[in-house]
Amino acid sequence: MRILVLGGDGYLGWPTSMYLSGKGHQVGVLDNAVRRQYDHELGSNSLVPIETLRTRVATWNALTGESITVYHGDLMDAEFTYDTIRDFAPDAIVHFAEQRAAPYSMIDRKHAVYTQTNNVVGTLNLMFAIGEINRDIHLVKLGTMGEYGTPNIDIEEGWLEVTHKGRTDRVLYPKRPGSFYHLSKVHDSHNLEFGCRIWGLRVTDLNQGIVYGQETAETALDERLATRFDYDAVFGTVLNRFAIQAVLGLPLSVYGGGTQTRAIIDIRDTVECIRLACESPADAGEFRVFNQTTETMSLAEMAKIVTSTFPGDSRVEYVDNPRVEVENHYFSVTHTALESLGLEPHLLSDTLLSSMFGIIDKHRDRVDPEHLLPTVDWRRTRNSIDRPSS
Amino acid sequence: MRILVLGGDGYLGWPTSMYLSGKGHQVGVLDNAVRRQYDHELGSNSLVPIETLRTRVATWNALTGESITVYHGDLMDAEFTYDTIRDFAPDAIVHFAEQRAAPYSMIDRKHAVYTQTNNVVGTLNLMFAIGEINRDIHLVKLGTMGEYGTPNIDIEEGWLEVTHKGRTDRVLYPKRPGSFYHLSKVHDSHNLEFGCRIWGLRVTDLNQGIVYGQETAETALDERLATRFDYDAVFGTVLNRFAIQAVLGLPLSVYGGGTQTRAIIDIRDTVECIRLACESPADAGEFRVFNQTTETMSLAEMAKIVTSTFPGDSRVEYVDNPRVEVENHYFSVTHTALESLGLEPHLLSDTLLSSMFGIIDKHRDRVDPEHLLPTVDWRRTRNSIDRPSS
Repeated sequence: MRILVLGGDGYLGWPTSMYLSGKGHQVGVLDNAVRRQYDHELGSNSLVPIETLRTRVATWNALTGESITVYHGDLMDAEFTYDTIRDFAPDAIVHFAEQRAAPYSMIDRKHAVYTQTNNVVGTLNLMFAIGEINRDIHLVKLGTMGEYGTPNIDIEEGWLEVTHKGRTDRVLYPKRPGSFYHLSKVHDSHNLEFGCRIWGLRVTDLNQGIVYGQETAETALDERLATRFDYDAVFGTVLNRFAIQAVLGLPLSVYGGGTQTRAIIDIRDTVECIRLACESPADAGEFRVFNQTTETMSLAEMAKIVTSTFPGDSRVEYVDNPRVEVENHYFSVTHTALESLGLEPHLLSDTLLSSMFGIIDKHRDRVDPEHLLPTVDWRRTRNSIDRPSS
Repeated sequence: MRILVLGGDGYLGWPTSMYLSGKGHQVGVLDNAVRRQYDHELGSNSLVPIETLRTRVATWNALTGESITVYHGDLMDAEFTYDTIRDFAPDAIVHFAEQRAAPYSMIDRKHAVYTQTNNVVGTLNLMFAIGEINRDIHLVKLGTMGEYGTPNIDIEEGWLEVTHKGRTDRVLYPKRPGSFYHLSKVHDSHNLEFGCRIWGLRVTDLNQGIVYGQETAETALDERLATRFDYDAVFGTVLNRFAIQAVLGLPLSVYGGGTQTRAIIDIRDTVECIRLACESPADAGEFRVFNQTTETMSLAEMAKIVTSTFPGDSRVEYVDNPRVEVENHYFSVTHTALESLGLEPHLLSDTLLSSMFGIIDKHRDRVDPEHLLPTVDWRRTRNSIDRPSS
């Protein structure tokens, strides 16, 4: 199968590209390297050193004999998007190429507008390219579990059977997202569902939980194949950040009461879920939604697992919640679709955390502890991301 | 009350501005005149001649002694938006300033992207300006009944009580809009509801039915105060177009089977609804939704009313439906909130249609019949809006 991975230079895009390539698929990567540019803007960096996309691809080729085609450019550039899809002629497109950090979208007006424009228009350009070039291309689009918010009813997979005043309908699951970033994904989902209706597109929308872990079988082959490991309060995901704080001897910063529950997933399950979705395409005209997550856990529970697993001393610090969110809430997530396609989940285990502690310890000198503290407050319309130079 | 009307030069914005001014409010109008620019692009025009905004405002002042402040500019220009709100210091902002035609958004990729960017980013800029300058400003935002689609359950006013697996929640009403334009309004609603949660904004979202009619008490005062009357297949609303076709002796073009049911409202009710919403603001943090419509009717029923009221011969022609939509569907709309604030609806009557026929007959020489035919097909990704020059 020919699979084009948009955002294939990113935290998950790169491991996914190698995983699919290793499974015998012909893989192309489209990326504009903007994730690396955000590091320059924020003064942040990946804990684990990463190579350029060209070196990554050359290394993968040298080690495995498999080729990955690279297209450098931006989905906001419609001509480039159309040209790439014409040239690569994919059977499936995996779409990671969006600004993906909630705090980044909440910095100020410009970052909110950038996030929504970049994500929504990039996806519109992609929809039109597929609609024009080949409507049979299966689009596998990354969304997030954060789109749902924290409803007081069970979270189903994208659609909900509703009975109201004695009548029944199947509707898009009503969402209540918690940042301008999460909102951009909800906008995408509405646009894509419409594309399925009018053009018969085939779309799988993956509402992914918060990903943790940094190693897959492929990234572990050679250090030049490593993927990013973000620890900063803007791009770092919560479990990764807790693990890093433990190794550095810093308190694990839990926002608010810590009773907020999140859906999570192991990076090794992410890449397998993408493969499963690609290999079982949605029907023509079908807007298919999977909740790509394997378990749910409160922030306090995650922190507790990290402190209890970490061999040294570590402690938790409750900090003012910079986000506006409900802290005590019901949270029950249906996630059976991917399991029914064959996913065998990795649940959060001591083993995984121990291997993460080792990776972190190896690169501990690269951490700038300032970046672990939240600077973006949801209540403000302007947040400063400038830090004193040290 | 100080009320700033965004898009106050448009079909509804201008009559609303005069109506509010006549009711003793201090009115400002912000507009970038882009609606007039679309006419140049499409080669279309208003059936009724309209004056420039400056002449309109000067005429209104000469006739009534009331002043309306004009701000010429674009909501996409954040600096201009912030400056205008600081300068005018409104208590309420009425937001009509969006690209409002479904067919226009379906022309091609560029028009879809333009519509969503213009509408969503313009509204984001506005939200941030209110969030930064004065969170007590009440935003009265125009949405559309078309956001809902045609669900098989009753359409409630923006929110829905859902019981699922024995648990209950109040959720945003799940929507399934029918064009990139309608989608842009759904995106706005999600963004604004979030603004209410994080910044305590006061928002009233008006899901308006299709407006018909061209005269209000104020536009009728002087022909220089007339508002636009669009008859083309891109910007013309359905009842207005049917009335024009009848007068011109052309068949009334009903799309598809004509059983599609729409929510409609008289232009005189629109202006009164806006006044009622402004004078009873939403609470701090409240995302309040009103269905601003007074009755529902199928396309075939509307055509029948027009043919039976028109004094001459007229007939209906069923044409291929250029839209992708369900033609046979349930449609039951709750619209009690505005009535409970005091709205006394004008229902579609012979009187109104007769007065419309008179207005149309007076300006019949201005019609270009080519513009009555639909050119934008929902199934295509590229529609040509160029017409042979005649």
